[in-house]
Amino acid sequence: MFTKTFEQYRMGDSWRSRGRTITEADLVMFAAFSGDWYPLHTDREWAAQGPFGQRIAHGMLVLSVATGLMVMDPGIVLAFYGMDRVRFVAPTFIGDTISVELAIAALTPKPKGGLVAASSTIRKQSGDAVAISTLKILVAAADEIRR
Amino acid sequence: MFTKTFEQYRMGDSWRSRGRTITEADLVMFAAFSGDWYPLHTDREWAAQGPFGQRIAHGMLVLSVATGLMVMDPGIVLAFYGMDRVRFVAPTFIGDTISVELAIAALTPKPKGGLVAASSTIRKQSGDAVAISTLKILVAAADEIRR
Amino acid sequence: MFTKTFEQYRMGDSWRSRGRTITEADLVMFAAFSGDWYPLHTDREWAAQGPFGQRIAHGMLVLSVATGLMVMDPGIVLAFYGMDRVRFVAPTFIGDTISVELAIAALTPKPKGGLVAASSTIRKQSGDAVAISTLKILVAAADEIRR
Amino acid sequence: MFTKTFEQYRMGDSWRSRGRTITEADLVMFAAFSGDWYPLHTDREWAAQGPFGQRIAHGMLVLSVATGLMVMDPGIVLAFYGMDRVRFVAPTFIGDTISVELAIAALTPKPKGGLVAASSTIRKQSGDAVAISTLKILVAAADEIRR
Amino acid sequence: MFTKTFEQYRMGDSWRSRGRTITEADLVMFAAFSGDWYPLHTDREWAAQGPFGQRIAHGMLVLSVATGLMVMDPGIVLAFYGMDRVRFVAPTFIGDTISVELAIAALTPKPKGGLVAASSTIRKQSGDAVAISTLKILVAAADEIRR
Amino acid sequence: MFTKTFEQYRMGDSWRSRGRTITEADLVMFAAFSGDWYPLHTDREWAAQGPFGQRIAHGMLVLSVATGLMVMDPGIVLAFYGMDRVRFVAPTFIGDTISVELAIAALTPKPKGGLVAASSTIRKQSGDAVAISTLKILVAAADEIRR
Repeated sequence: MFTKTFEQYRMGDSWRSRGRTITEADLVMFAAFSGDWYPLHTDREWAAQGPFGQRIAHGMLVLSVATGLMVMDPGIVLAFYGMDRVRFVAPTFIGDTISVELAIAALTPKPKGGLVAASSTIRKQSGDAVAISTLKILVAAADEIRR
Repeated sequence: MFTKTFEQYRMGDSWRSRGRTITEADLVMFAAFSGDWYPLHTDREWAAQGPFGQRIAHGMLVLSVATGLMVMDPGIVLAFYGMDRVRFVAPTFIGDTISVELAIAALTPKPKGGLVAASSTIRKQSGDAVAISTLKILVAAADEIRR
Repeated sequence: MFTKTFEQYRMGDSWRSRGRTITEADLVMFAAFSGDWYPLHTDREWAAQGPFGQRIAHGMLVLSVATGLMVMDPGIVLAFYGMDRVRFVAPTFIGDTISVELAIAALTPKPKGGLVAASSTIRKQSGDAVAISTLKILVAAADEIRR
Repeated sequence: MFTKTFEQYRMGDSWRSRGRTITEADLVMFAAFSGDWYPLHTDREWAAQGPFGQRIAHGMLVLSVATGLMVMDPGIVLAFYGMDRVRFVAPTFIGDTISVELAIAALTPKPKGGLVAASSTIRKQSGDAVAISTLKILVAAADEIRR
Repeated sequence: MFTKTFEQYRMGDSWRSRGRTITEADLVMFAAFSGDWYPLHTDREWAAQGPFGQRIAHGMLVLSVATGLMVMDPGIVLAFYGMDRVRFVAPTFIGDTISVELAIAALTPKPKGGLVAASSTIRKQSGDAVAISTLKILVAAADEIRR
Repeated sequence: MFTKTFEQYRMGDSWRSRGRTITEADLVMFAAFSGDWYPLHTDREWAAQGPFGQRIAHGMLVLSVATGLMVMDPGIVLAFYGMDRVRFVAPTFIGDTISVELAIAALTPKPKGGLVAASSTIRKQSGDAVAISTLKILVAAADEIRR
């Protein structure tokens, strides 16, 4: 997706990533890395008695994996500017496979290129959305590419 | 911070976390976990010629570590609802130590408790902010605590 | 547990931690980190023919996880002094959820606070103990807290 | 195997390692470390529709684990010179336990010892080979051991 | 590189990857994952007295990272067939940044596409080669792509 | 060390392991795995103002690494029985290289072999001890070896 220069995006352009299966190992590794051992993610007994009957992935795990599923050309993407209205809309369970859908939602010219706002929907294999947000990425103009 | 029931929060309440030093190992581990090997985070030669003259931490690394720095009572926190207006305002370099400051920004009652909106500022040792956002956490009322 | 100054402990005070499920990923990660690839922990075929019929967690994995389950106030805990009579009394299997119980067993005043000896029992979800020991933690007096 | 000095090897000498079970966590950790997220290794849905009907371990994962299964005396092994004709002959599935068989295939004297060529066969618990190659290891002569 | 169908390759086509800095964390993580704790990679004191005066990366670490630096279209790449004549020609030190150069060396038609042999040279920032090999990758013909 | 059957040990037998350098990556990985983010191990700013002026390794990190430095024959070692009088006697800093010295301290016959008590001293490169303990390992008699 983020392999085009600012001039090349059009409103409504969309793209879908490959998938990645979220395993029990991912939950343990993310709990470890982040330090977030909230028991809904890491205690099978606790989670079994909660609203989902099982452990679910951390919201930030899902967002972090999604950044790796996106394809970025390092010479074109200048900065990860931010995110608006991030919502965790459904649980990601162990064994679910997630992928990212992006659609261009706004294009704002800036000195060296422009800010691309993309609606992001992270879906699992069933098609259900698990997290939505608007990503804001600063992208170079054609004559500002770094090689 | 998130060890109190919904009734106990007051607008403006604030809290500061312990710190965690972001090491070169953290950058490598987060690149590995997320799959985001953007060279500004992982290629010393490339980064040396970029705007910061060195590698910087992923924005999502900083947000993920911040979730682990927060203290949550599992019986009280019901869900991580989402984040609004996440902005990465300054780079986090290898060796910087970050901590989180939270201040209550809005309190919205809900059936089993309420939604707590907290302004989050992630700062490095110098006091400079590196990321800001508004976190939205669903918190139980006193008579809905799970033990 | 270790959030109180030395004057505040009483013989027999007790505390129980949250739980953490020990997954297959934990066995692999601990074997990797420690370098202890003893086949009872890492070779399913070998373990299937051993006394337990399956892989079991390393004793040191269980002790290491237990230190992370304990809550320590960094301004109060001065040092991890040591452990007495550590015994691995039953196997921890993949999927077991462990938690730690501590009970104050001895209190020895020292110049800046005192040595707290706590009987530690690490239990799985069934209530069965998997490891016992006496932990010795050096704790600050109220007027020696670091803030 | 590589605990003998160059003079002590004989053509046809053979050796077999202990085993290591390749878990789902291993696939995730190797994908993360290497950056190779090819979906046959990391996307359960994609792999289910491929030739094996499930995820398989990376070829380089299998070779990397095999190096750790070999026993090397650091004072005797001088260098890992290279590998010839590496072939991935069958898939390694999650849950398979692999071990390494080595047989001396060639012995070439060199100034401080010699080059040992060993035919390597990595097998799973069924006895089926999953990868074959010829390893070339530079080994010290008895009077060149480092202690 | 491996984003083209078999018909599209020409002898001598070449490609260069992005870079990745090999950190001390990478050496520790690879030693841990593989189980290969040979002291030239993991013992600073031992390595200081060896031929390089410092620790060096494992040969298999370098090869594994190189597979992640390559770009593969999952619908086109059918299998990693093997490697010929892998040679570790110079040490990779902590802090070196490696990238991969590939050049098409042979093209052999097969039933559903063909076998692409690519000469691989892994270089560090100075341009010096650290490992060379010939990779053999099975690639689909245009009418055998999986979508 | 633990490659001999029970009959073969003699009081006073001793052994020394290879070394392993404790890196900053090890501190981060152990904090992550164990969940013990005590700031003396993980916050450079906090540690700089503490008694050592820098971060130190977790005591349990040191003990865990030591278990991997020991050599155990899986057919002979029956169980890790426990540890007596574990004491953390000096700090292990980032960059220190540790190794383990064992000396047989007691031999107690048991039905299928016996309990070997070994005095363990973990030392850094300077020769200074960082942790001491008595390990108790259950070892098979010659006619009880598992092959």
